[in-house]
Amino acid sequence: MKGIPFAAILALSALAKGQGLVPEKLQQETARLRDSAAGSHAEEIARSLCDRVGSRLSGSPGSRKAVEWALEEFRRLGFENVHPETLMEPRWERGIETGEILAPASYRLALTALGGSPGTKASGLSRTVVGTESIESLAELLKREPDAVRGKIVYFNRRMARTQDGAGYGDAVKIRWAGPESAARAGAAAVLIRSVGTSGDRLPHTGATKPLEKKFQIPSAAVSAPDADLLERLLSGESPVEVRLTLGCRSLPDAEGANVVGEIRGSELPGEIVLAGAHLDSWDLATGALDDAAGVGIISEAARLIARLPRRPRRTIRLVLFANEENGGKGGEAYEAAHRLELENHVAALEMDLGTDRVYSFSALAAPGAGALLAPLAEILKPIGISTLEGEAAGADISAYRAEGVPMLELNQDASRYFDVHHSADDTFDKIDPAAMRQAVAATAAVLYYVADLPATLGRVPAEKRTVKKW
Amino acid sequence: MKGIPFAAILALSALAKGQGLVPEKLQQETARLRDSAAGSHAEEIARSLCDRVGSRLSGSPGSRKAVEWALEEFRRLGFENVHPETLMEPRWERGIETGEILAPASYRLALTALGGSPGTKASGLSRTVVGTESIESLAELLKREPDAVRGKIVYFNRRMARTQDGAGYGDAVKIRWAGPESAARAGAAAVLIRSVGTSGDRLPHTGATKPLEKKFQIPSAAVSAPDADLLERLLSGESPVEVRLTLGCRSLPDAEGANVVGEIRGSELPGEIVLAGAHLDSWDLATGALDDAAGVGIISEAARLIARLPRRPRRTIRLVLFANEENGGKGGEAYEAAHRLELENHVAALEMDLGTDRVYSFSALAAPGAGALLAPLAEILKPIGISTLEGEAAGADISAYRAEGVPMLELNQDASRYFDVHHSADDTFDKIDPAAMRQAVAATAAVLYYVADLPATLGRVPAEKRTVKKW
Repeated sequence: MKGIPFAAILALSALAKGQGLVPEKLQQETARLRDSAAGSHAEEIARSLCDRVGSRLSGSPGSRKAVEWALEEFRRLGFENVHPETLMEPRWERGIETGEILAPASYRLALTALGGSPGTKASGLSRTVVGTESIESLAELLKREPDAVRGKIVYFNRRMARTQDGAGYGDAVKIRWAGPESAARAGAAAVLIRSVGTSGDRLPHTGATKPLEKKFQIPSAAVSAPDADLLERLLSGESPVEVRLTLGCRSLPDAEGANVVGEIRGSELPGEIVLAGAHLDSWDLATGALDDAAGVGIISEAARLIARLPRRPRRTIRLVLFANEENGGKGGEAYEAAHRLELENHVAALEMDLGTDRVYSFSALAAPGAGALLAPLAEILKPIGISTLEGEAAGADISAYRAEGVPMLELNQDASRYFDVHHSADDTFDKIDPAAMRQAVAATAAVLYYVADLPATLGRVPAEKRTVKKW
Repeated sequence: MKGIPFAAILALSALAKGQGLVPEKLQQETARLRDSAAGSHAEEIARSLCDRVGSRLSGSPGSRKAVEWALEEFRRLGFENVHPETLMEPRWERGIETGEILAPASYRLALTALGGSPGTKASGLSRTVVGTESIESLAELLKREPDAVRGKIVYFNRRMARTQDGAGYGDAVKIRWAGPESAARAGAAAVLIRSVGTSGDRLPHTGATKPLEKKFQIPSAAVSAPDADLLERLLSGESPVEVRLTLGCRSLPDAEGANVVGEIRGSELPGEIVLAGAHLDSWDLATGALDDAAGVGIISEAARLIARLPRRPRRTIRLVLFANEENGGKGGEAYEAAHRLELENHVAALEMDLGTDRVYSFSALAAPGAGALLAPLAEILKPIGISTLEGEAAGADISAYRAEGVPMLELNQDASRYFDVHHSADDTFDKIDPAAMRQAVAATAAVLYYVADLPATLGRVPAEKRTVKKW
């Protein structure tokens, strides 16, 4: 998960007006479908991906294995038109990674390289550390003292707040995405950041950095929260803090990968597509259980429940398991490029990429009049604890579609615990909550089925709302 | 922490009878001392040890640095007769440590070598895994099939229960202590165990193994709980599980270390000693904040509060920071040997080695009549939430003293969370709870002062209660 839900909470007053537009039968069938998820086992799909494939960073053997797994799994689940859509994806390999505080104390840091980081020399890189909180505070420092970080290690110490909507991520992730660039432009030798995450254990959190020209690429790593606390304590003291950083990571030529597609073909309007996405790749430190075997499990199980209904929805539900969401976004780009001609046939898109915790709200970004069509759906989601909001909505892989006006559906999962394990070695199968996941499956199945079977589409997103917020 | 409190819960009915034996003034002073801990900062002592020394496994440079730190700290705190008591301590070094499941899936294990383990060849050791739950279940298997584990990796999968008194540790730790021996005697090539701990994260827990003749030493490591769960799932399947284990650990010749001693000399009976112990060494994976910078902080701060009172207690309070509690117990042995002639002058002993959480009960193992003397102390401890029990009591470093009849005092801390971080990379300063630690300091100060100032001693432990339970 890289994108973040910014739920601008506006009650849709239009909702109340929708009754009558939507056939009673569709409403009943959607409610029944919602309830049928009670016996579902989406966690078995996620488990299979975690146990049989394991980690699957783009360009790795695991990434190729994941594509085979997904093709087999989609066929087993009874989807149609199952196929890979090949693409070239980045390849970056982690090697040895160690760090030590050399002065004023001796201490081995728990750290992990950030995606795309170059390595150091084999003997490592030993430098004085300059601490700062954020991109902004570094800029302030450089205004006063332009050479403050030249030849040094810049340490960004921004803390991430734990919130239900995951908004703390959007704030803190800037140090990871843009920190290396800011520091490199000021002549720094390397970057350390406080892990972007909410855990208090010694497992650091990796993640993508902004792609840069070679001359601005400097070794970059995240330290775990306890190590960040120690650096903070030492940097507040009198003595200079010296750190040795040794990273063996490197970028290699792009490799072939693939998005994997499967469909439930529509019974009346098969050319109209409701897209449901999740991403197949994961970081390399763990098996990507929450990020995003969870999403793969949720959309696959939701679609399986729909596929076994006696009557297919009017439109096609297309599942896309995107490649390379984590470390480049080439999967989303490739899908958008390959289906450009089909763009106007996409009547809605939904992405699941926030773990397995319960969905607490549903938001739709669509044409101004769409609220009336969605009002009965809001009623169907209420009994499973989901409120309906109007707001922002965009998954990382489908954001290009929003820019083109495709209505965006978002099921907002409780992200309070998600960032404890996100992008760390701790993102393993045991973190999945099967009961909460069943509720997310119920919501996903209901939304997909309902929107795919509506008598009319949700229109297009008004031009002024198509801009995707970027951290 | 290696020993475990087995609180055999028997209410001391004798307690009620004690009023009158103990001067009112001592009771009042003890209560005032207890309350004075409210403003104490034992966590600063622990922080200094964690930040300035860091990890300090016996035989390492950190171990020597810790001795210097302790001598300086004891002097700073105003203790008397501060000195090191040198000894030879084991030296074992961790090197590279990696593990991978090779079949039926490909997966990198989070593991850590157990103390004393020999290394593997540099190219590692790849073998089939045989899973079993416990020492007992392995013995059962070998009865049916004597060659069942020959040349294989034995995996012990015992789960540790989370309990307030830490009793789950005593049960689970057998696989770590005796597992390598049991497997080696049956011809196994190596041992893996489920981490002895209660955390669900991917940080494995190390710890000591039973010292063995060279021919029974085989590479031994603990995997983290999520990795243990995966091994369990894979071993329950049809396909053989193959693992490659690469350990660079090794034992080296013993090195010089030291116990560090400091005293508050008694005002009337300085030759009678109340011993308060904690251990100075730690495992190498972290800074040993809970295990046992916590105990060092608690007894040191408690003694500091006593030292600044206008009137010294009648007897001497002797603080001993033991070397090598974790990986050999040479500190406890050396103290006992060096002070053998003084043995009968030790009137009581207390060891703090269970982190910083609140003390919930006090138990004393002493002469049958001692309950009456301790009854007023029980009343003094009640207001800070401590009940008084009669029961077992023995810290790892002072257990030899129990065998000789020295009364054992135990302040039982809530161990519910202790084993989440115990012996893992997560045992860092941020895990210390300063508020709970103040309560432990209050209890420790009260108990030490009270017992050191009583009009009579607690006698000797009856012969039939001197046997120390061993897991």
